[in-house]
Amino acid sequence: MGPLNFNHILTQATDRLSESESYQGLFHQHTDGTPLPSAKALRRIVELTRSILFPGYFGNPIVNSRTLKYHIGVDVEHLFDLLTEQVMAGLCFASQDGCACATTLRDRAAEVAASLVERLPEMRHTLHTDVEAAYNGDPAAHSFGEVICCYPGLRAIANYRLAHELLSMGVPLIPRIITEMAHGETGIDIHPGAQIGTHFSIDHGTGVVIGETCIIGNRVKLYQGVTLGAKNFPLDDEGNPVKGIPRHPILEDDVIVYSNATILGRITIGREATVGGNIWVTEDVAPGTRIVQTKAKN
Amino acid sequence: MGPLNFNHILTQATDRLSESESYQGLFHQHTDGTPLPSAKALRRIVELTRSILFPGYFGNPIVNSRTLKYHIGVDVEHLFDLLTEQVMAGLCFASQDGCACATTLRDRAAEVAASLVERLPEMRHTLHTDVEAAYNGDPAAHSFGEVICCYPGLRAIANYRLAHELLSMGVPLIPRIITEMAHGETGIDIHPGAQIGTHFSIDHGTGVVIGETCIIGNRVKLYQGVTLGAKNFPLDDEGNPVKGIPRHPILEDDVIVYSNATILGRITIGREATVGGNIWVTEDVAPGTRIVQTKAKN
Amino acid sequence: MGPLNFNHILTQATDRLSESESYQGLFHQHTDGTPLPSAKALRRIVELTRSILFPGYFGNPIVNSRTLKYHIGVDVEHLFDLLTEQVMAGLCFASQDGCACATTLRDRAAEVAASLVERLPEMRHTLHTDVEAAYNGDPAAHSFGEVICCYPGLRAIANYRLAHELLSMGVPLIPRIITEMAHGETGIDIHPGAQIGTHFSIDHGTGVVIGETCIIGNRVKLYQGVTLGAKNFPLDDEGNPVKGIPRHPILEDDVIVYSNATILGRITIGREATVGGNIWVTEDVAPGTRIVQTKAKN
Amino acid sequence: MGPLNFNHILTQATDRLSESESYQGLFHQHTDGTPLPSAKALRRIVELTRSILFPGYFGNPIVNSRTLKYHIGVDVEHLFDLLTEQVMAGLCFASQDGCACATTLRDRAAEVAASLVERLPEMRHTLHTDVEAAYNGDPAAHSFGEVICCYPGLRAIANYRLAHELLSMGVPLIPRIITEMAHGETGIDIHPGAQIGTHFSIDHGTGVVIGETCIIGNRVKLYQGVTLGAKNFPLDDEGNPVKGIPRHPILEDDVIVYSNATILGRITIGREATVGGNIWVTEDVAPGTRIVQTKAKN
Amino acid sequence: MGPLNFNHILTQATDRLSESESYQGLFHQHTDGTPLPSAKALRRIVELTRSILFPGYFGNPIVNSRTLKYHIGVDVEHLFDLLTEQVMAGLCFASQDGCACATTLRDRAAEVAASLVERLPEMRHTLHTDVEAAYNGDPAAHSFGEVICCYPGLRAIANYRLAHELLSMGVPLIPRIITEMAHGETGIDIHPGAQIGTHFSIDHGTGVVIGETCIIGNRVKLYQGVTLGAKNFPLDDEGNPVKGIPRHPILEDDVIVYSNATILGRITIGREATVGGNIWVTEDVAPGTRIVQTKAKN
Amino acid sequence: MGPLNFNHILTQATDRLSESESYQGLFHQHTDGTPLPSAKALRRIVELTRSILFPGYFGNPIVNSRTLKYHIGVDVEHLFDLLTEQVMAGLCFASQDGCACATTLRDRAAEVAASLVERLPEMRHTLHTDVEAAYNGDPAAHSFGEVICCYPGLRAIANYRLAHELLSMGVPLIPRIITEMAHGETGIDIHPGAQIGTHFSIDHGTGVVIGETCIIGNRVKLYQGVTLGAKNFPLDDEGNPVKGIPRHPILEDDVIVYSNATILGRITIGREATVGGNIWVTEDVAPGTRIVQTKAKN
Repeated sequence: MGPLNFNHILTQATDRLSESESYQGLFHQHTDGTPLPSAKALRRIVELTRSILFPGYFGNPIVNSRTLKYHIGVDVEHLFDLLTEQVMAGLCFASQDGCACATTLRDRAAEVAASLVERLPEMRHTLHTDVEAAYNGDPAAHSFGEVICCYPGLRAIANYRLAHELLSMGVPLIPRIITEMAHGETGIDIHPGAQIGTHFSIDHGTGVVIGETCIIGNRVKLYQGVTLGAKNFPLDDEGNPVKGIPRHPILEDDVIVYSNATILGRITIGREATVGGNIWVTEDVAPGTRIVQTKAKN
Repeated sequence: MGPLNFNHILTQATDRLSESESYQGLFHQHTDGTPLPSAKALRRIVELTRSILFPGYFGNPIVNSRTLKYHIGVDVEHLFDLLTEQVMAGLCFASQDGCACATTLRDRAAEVAASLVERLPEMRHTLHTDVEAAYNGDPAAHSFGEVICCYPGLRAIANYRLAHELLSMGVPLIPRIITEMAHGETGIDIHPGAQIGTHFSIDHGTGVVIGETCIIGNRVKLYQGVTLGAKNFPLDDEGNPVKGIPRHPILEDDVIVYSNATILGRITIGREATVGGNIWVTEDVAPGTRIVQTKAKN
Repeated sequence: MGPLNFNHILTQATDRLSESESYQGLFHQHTDGTPLPSAKALRRIVELTRSILFPGYFGNPIVNSRTLKYHIGVDVEHLFDLLTEQVMAGLCFASQDGCACATTLRDRAAEVAASLVERLPEMRHTLHTDVEAAYNGDPAAHSFGEVICCYPGLRAIANYRLAHELLSMGVPLIPRIITEMAHGETGIDIHPGAQIGTHFSIDHGTGVVIGETCIIGNRVKLYQGVTLGAKNFPLDDEGNPVKGIPRHPILEDDVIVYSNATILGRITIGREATVGGNIWVTEDVAPGTRIVQTKAKN
Repeated sequence: MGPLNFNHILTQATDRLSESESYQGLFHQHTDGTPLPSAKALRRIVELTRSILFPGYFGNPIVNSRTLKYHIGVDVEHLFDLLTEQVMAGLCFASQDGCACATTLRDRAAEVAASLVERLPEMRHTLHTDVEAAYNGDPAAHSFGEVICCYPGLRAIANYRLAHELLSMGVPLIPRIITEMAHGETGIDIHPGAQIGTHFSIDHGTGVVIGETCIIGNRVKLYQGVTLGAKNFPLDDEGNPVKGIPRHPILEDDVIVYSNATILGRITIGREATVGGNIWVTEDVAPGTRIVQTKAKN
Repeated sequence: MGPLNFNHILTQATDRLSESESYQGLFHQHTDGTPLPSAKALRRIVELTRSILFPGYFGNPIVNSRTLKYHIGVDVEHLFDLLTEQVMAGLCFASQDGCACATTLRDRAAEVAASLVERLPEMRHTLHTDVEAAYNGDPAAHSFGEVICCYPGLRAIANYRLAHELLSMGVPLIPRIITEMAHGETGIDIHPGAQIGTHFSIDHGTGVVIGETCIIGNRVKLYQGVTLGAKNFPLDDEGNPVKGIPRHPILEDDVIVYSNATILGRITIGREATVGGNIWVTEDVAPGTRIVQTKAKN
Repeated sequence: MGPLNFNHILTQATDRLSESESYQGLFHQHTDGTPLPSAKALRRIVELTRSILFPGYFGNPIVNSRTLKYHIGVDVEHLFDLLTEQVMAGLCFASQDGCACATTLRDRAAEVAASLVERLPEMRHTLHTDVEAAYNGDPAAHSFGEVICCYPGLRAIANYRLAHELLSMGVPLIPRIITEMAHGETGIDIHPGAQIGTHFSIDHGTGVVIGETCIIGNRVKLYQGVTLGAKNFPLDDEGNPVKGIPRHPILEDDVIVYSNATILGRITIGREATVGGNIWVTEDVAPGTRIVQTKAKN
C-alpha cells in the first residue's frame, strides 16, 4: 500500500476546504491583484529605518563619515519605495469599496511615505533620549553602543515610534503588524496608539503590555511583565465592545513600575510615583508615593 | 604566531569530544539513516496548514475564488507528503527497536497524515470560533483580518490545535515541537495534551503557560502571563516524577483570567468565574465568583 | 503626480540625517574596516556549539559513531575561526584607541577562541546535568532527547554557559549578544555575568530575568516569569549608576522559585527554600522555609 | 595608511560617474517606477512553462495524475501573473512616451499573457514532435525522459518556441532575453523571429546561430556550430543597417546540416539536402544534394 | 477590466493541459514517491567531489594539513549519502517495473556509491596528470593552481571522469546529467561513455564534442570547437537508430587536434598525428602525419 | 544490510585521500588564514561594475537622476572594499613567501582597488563605443538598451576590459577568473592580456577565443567561433613552454572576421581586411583584401 491510496482523501479534503461556506470569513480575496501587506517587506522597512537612524550599528557594516550620505540616501529612497507599496496595500485592505481607485490610493500612500521620511530626523532625536535613559538606568550597560545593539527594550520602542507615526497619518493594519514584530522578537507589546514621551525605557521587557489609549509622560521606566491594560470595556447594543474609548492608564512623568505589576483602567499614576512588582492596581496612585505588595506569609 | 599554532588545541578538543563517555546520553545516533524530525520541515507544515485554513492571509499572496481550489489542492498534497515524512521520523525517534521495520512505520505515518488532512475542515471550523472570540473581546480589533494577521494568541492556538490532533493520533515528539515553535514566536506555551473548547482567546499572551492535563471549557479568555500549572507531582520509587497524572486546573465555560495570575494544581475554576491579575490560586473557585489580590500598601 | 515629485523630500531628509550633529552618539564609525560583531556570525557560533555538544540533535542530521569525529573536527575548526573573528570585532569595539594594533588584537582573539574550545568538554559535562534536572523535574518529559530538542529552558542555559565562559575571558559585548539571542528566542534573560551551579533548570521560562551579579547554587529550579533583580542601585557623583556592585539575589542549593515571583536586591534565599508564585521578595528567606502570597479575596 | 585615505578617490570617482554627460546613453531612467524586465522573473517564467509542459520532469518533484491538475492550475495562474507584469515592463521599456498610460499597458499585458496561456497546449504538442525527433535521431538516447532532462537542444528550442509566441504578439525585448537565457545555458542562439517547423532537433548544439529572418521547414536537424546567418546587409542613408529585411537562409523540410557549417544570406537549402561540416555556403543548394568540404591536404 | 476577467482562460487552459492525451509521453509520474534525480543534488555531488579531490581550491576555504582529514571525512560521508539517494533515483527512473522493490534498489545504490568512493584516490591520480598536461601545454598558465581554479577544460574532464565511473557501474541517466552540467558551464560536451587516457587536455574548449564510443589515448590535446562525432548510423527495421554500435573516432596517443576540426566516423587518427583546424575528416589519418585545410582564396 | 556497513569504506577512503603523497600538488594550503580569491565575491565585483557603468540596467532596479549619485557612491565604496580584499587574496596566492607581510599586501591591494575605481569613468567611455558598434552592426538590434541587456558579446567585452585593467596593475589570477566567468556565461574566451581598441564588437560570440598576446585595433568585428590563437610555441630546455612570447595575431583597424575562422600565429590581418568563415589562416592578410574558403564540392 503506497501513498497513492490516500489520493481520494486528499481530493475530498480539497473539495471540502474549497467550498465557500467552509472558508466564509477566513478567506481574504484579493480582487484586484493587490496583495496584503507583506511581513517580509515590513521587516525590511524596520531594518532600513534602523540603519538610517543608527548608522553603523545596523545595515551596511562598513560606513564612515565621508560616505555616510550615500548610504543614507540609498536607504531613504528604498524605504520610501517599500513604504509606498506597503501603505497602499494597507489602505486597500481597509477600504470598503474594493480599492476602486488604485491611482488615488497610490498617491495617498506616496504622500504618507514622504511624510514619514520627513519625520525621521525628529524620530532619531527622540530615540536618542530613549538610548540615554536606558544607559543611565542600568548599571550593567557599558556604552550607548551596547544599548543600541543588544537591548530589546530599545528595539520595541523604536518599532513603536515608527508605528505610532504611521498610525497618526491614518495608515491601517501596518502599524499593528510592526509593533507585533517587536512583540514577537522581544515579548514587549506596545499598541501603536499609545502616546509615550521622551527618555522612555523598558528594562528586560518580556511580558510588558501597553494598551491602545495609554498616555505615558517623560522619563518613565518600566520593568519586565508590567501590564498597562483595560479593566473592562463597555459593550454596544449588539454586545460588541465599543471601539476607541479611553480605557488604559495615564502615567505621568518620572514614574517607575517594577516587574509584573498590573495597572488596569483609566487611572492616573502620579508624577514620580513608584509601583512595586507583582501588584494589581486599579485605582489612582498619588504623585510621589510608592506602593508595594502586602508582605508574603510563610 | 598565526592560527596554525592552535591546531593541536583543536585536534585535542576534537579527540576528547569524540570519546563515547563524553557524549553519552547527549548524542542521537541515526542508526538507519532516518534523521530526527526537522524543525525546518515542521515550520513549513505549520505554514501550509495556515495557508490552507486561512487562504489569502497566509501562503500564496494572490488567490481568488476561481483558482482557490488549485492552491488548496497543491498545499494539501504538499502537507500530506511532508507530514508523512516527519511523522515517520517522530515514530522512529520514539521506537525502542531502532526502526526495525521502516515500511510499517511509513505506512503508519501516511495513515496519520491522511487522518490529519481529513480533520482540517473541522479544525478550520473551530479556529473560526477562536477568531470570533478574539475579535469580540478586544475593542482594539478592527476586523477578523487584523486578528488573523496580527494576533499572536491566534497563532499559538492554531499551532496548539494542530499539535493536539497529532498527539491524539499517537504521534510522539512532533506535537511538542510544534507548540514550542509558537512558544518561541509568541511567548505562549500551550502543551499539546491540554483539552480546550471553542471560542478560546488569549490576549497579548506573552508568558501564558497551559499545562499538559488542563481541561478548558468554551468561551474562556486568558490574558498575558497566566499560568495554569501543576502544584507538585508524586514521585515513583526511584524518585522520578510519575507521568500522566491529572495535575493541572480545570477551567469551566466562560471563565476569565487576568494577567499574571498563577493557578496551580487539579482545582476547578467554576463557570463564569473571574480571576484577577497577579494572584496565586491553589484552591477551587466557585462558579460566578470573582477573586482579586489583597490591596497593595504604601 | 508621480513618485518623482517626492525626490526633494528624500534628498532633504538625506541631508539632515547626514549632518554630524544629527547622528552624534548614534553612529558607529568603523575607522579601520573592522565591522561590529555580526549577529549572523554569532548565531552560527551558537549553532556550531550546539552541534558539537549535542551531536545528532543539532547540525548535520546524519552522524554516526564512526564518522562523528570528522563532524566534530570540522565544527570545532569552524567555531574557532568564526569566534576568532568575532572576538576580535568585540575587542575592537571596546578598545579606546581605535584598534591601533590589529595584529595584537587578532592574536588575543585567537587565544580566547582556543581557550573556549578547550573548555567545551567541561561545558558539555555541565549541560548534561542541566538536561538531567529538566527531565527529572517534569512529568511531561518523555526522554532526554525531548528535553534537548524542545525545551527553551535548556537553550537559554546553553547560551548562558557559552556566554559566561566568554565573559570570564574578558570578551566585551559578545556575551551579552549571545544571551540576548536566547532572550529573543525563549523570553528567558540571563545576564552572562551571573554565576550558576550545576543541575540548573528553568521550566517554560518566558519572562525569567536573572541579573548580572546573581549567585545561584546547584539543583536550583525556576519557573516562568521569575525575576532575580536589583532593588535599586547607588549613583555616582554625576548621577550615573555605579557599575559592578553586587545587587542581585543569592539562591543557595536546591531552591525552587514558582512562576512570576520577583526577588530583588542582594538578599539570600536559603538552601531548600521554596518561594511561591506572584510574590515580591526583598528580604532574606531562611533555609528550608516556604513563603507564599497572602490569600486573595473575593 | 588605512582604507580611509582612499575616501577622496571614491568620492571623486562618484562625482565623475554621476555627471550626466558621463552616463549619457548608458543610463536607463525609470521615470515612473516601472523597472526593466527582470531576468529573475523571466527565468521563473521559463521554469513555470517547463513544469506545465513537461509535468514531473520540471517543477514540483512529486506529481501524480490525480493531483496533476492542481499543480498545473497553480502554475498557470502564477505564469499569467508574472508574465503580465513582465510584458508590461517590456511594453513600457519600448514605449516612446514614458509609459503615459499605465492602465492601458497593464490591460494590454494581461491580454498578451492570457493569449500565451491559451497557446500552451499547442506549444506542448509541437515540442512533443521535437522530443521525438531528438530521440529518433540519436543512438545515444535511451528514452524520451533522457531527452527532456538532459538535452540542451531541447531546452533551447523550448525557450525559442515560447519567445517566438511572445514576439508574434508584439512583445518587445522579452523574447530576446528569453532566447539569450538559453544561449547562455546551451551555447545555442536562436533569434525569436526565426520561423521553425515541427520535429526540429539540434544535436549537442554549442555554437549554433539561427538568424532573425530564417525560415526552417519540418524535420530539420542541425549539429553543433552551425551558423544560419546574414552575409551582409544594406545600410540606410545614415550608414545604419536597415532593419527587418530578409537576409538569412531558408532550409526546406528534411535538411541536415553538419557541425560548424556556415550558411549565409537569403539562400535556399533545398528539401532533403545535406550540408557537410566546416563549410562556407553562400549559394543555393539543390534539393536532395549533399555538399562537403574540399579534401584536406597533408 | 481587471485580471479576474481572464480567470476562465486560465481554468480552460488548465483543463486542456491536464487531459491525459495532452501530456502523453511528456509526463513523468512518480508512482511511488521517488522523485527524479535532482539537478541540485547532482550539482552538490560534483562540488563535493571537487573539494575532496582538490582540497583548498574548492569547498571549505580554510583547510590546513592538520585538519584536512576532518573535512575530507565529512565530505566523503556527505557524498556517499547524496550519491546513494541519487543513484537510487536513477535506477528507479530506468526500471521497467515501477521500482517494485525499493529496498533492493537502495542496497544496490549504496554499493555503487561506496564503489565510487573507493575509486576516488585513483580518480585524483588521473586528474593530476590532466592538470599537468594543461599546465605544460599552455604558455599562458602560471601555476597548477591557476589551471585548477580557472580552466574550463579541466572542469569538463573532471565531470567526465566522475560520470564515466558511474556509467561503468551501470548507473543510468545520472552520468549524462553530470556531463551535461559541464557542457552548460564550459561548452564542452563529453559523452560519459567515451574512453579517455591520462594527460588529457582541452584548451579553451567551447564547442568540443566527444561522442559515446570514442577511444582516446594518452597525452591527447584538443582545441576548442573540435568534434569527434558519428558520420551516420544504421537504423533498425522500424527506422530507429541501433544503439551502442562503435561509430566515433579512435585517437591514438599524442594526437593534437586544432580548433573547429570535425572528425567523423569509426576512423583512426594515428599516434602523434596532428589535425589542423576547420577541416572535415572522415578517413583514417596515418601516425605522425599532419593535415591542414586547403588554402583559402581571395 | 544498511548504510552503516559501508562505514569502513568511507573511513579507508578518507585515510587514503588525506595522505600527503596523495594530494601533492592538488592541495592549496592556506597557511595564514587568507582564503583563495572567491568566485562569489568576484561575481559580485563584476555585478557592481556593471551597475556603476550602466546605471538602471543592472543593479538596483529603481534609480533616477536625483538619487543616482547615492547609488553610485554606495556601489563604488562596496566595489572598493570587495576588490581590496580579493586583490589581497590574489597577491597572497601568487607570493612565494607565504604572505609574510599581510599589512604590506593589504596596502598594495587597496592602492590597486583605488586605481581601478579611478579608471571607471574612462572604462565607461570605452564601453560606450562598444555598445555603439554592436548597435550599428546588427540590423536585429532595436536600441542601445537591448544591446546592454541582452548581448553576450558586450558582457564578455565588459569583463575583459575590467580584467585587463587589473592585469595591467599587476594583479595575479583574478583577471583570468573574471574573463573565465564571461567565458562560462557567453562562450567567449578573451584572455585579459590581449590589447583591444575601441568600438569592438563580437556578434553571437559562442566559441570565440582571443589569445594572450593578440593586438586588436579599433572598429574590429568578430563573429561566433572565431579563434585568434597561437600556432605553436617554443619550449625551454626542460621542455616547458616559454611564457610571454608574442604568439597571437595582430588585427588592424576595421577588420571583420566571419564565423568559425581560425587565425593562428603572430601574423597581421591588415586594415579593413575581411576574413571569411570556416577558414584556417596562418599567414598575413593584406590590408583591404577579402579571403574565403575554397568552394565546397558535391
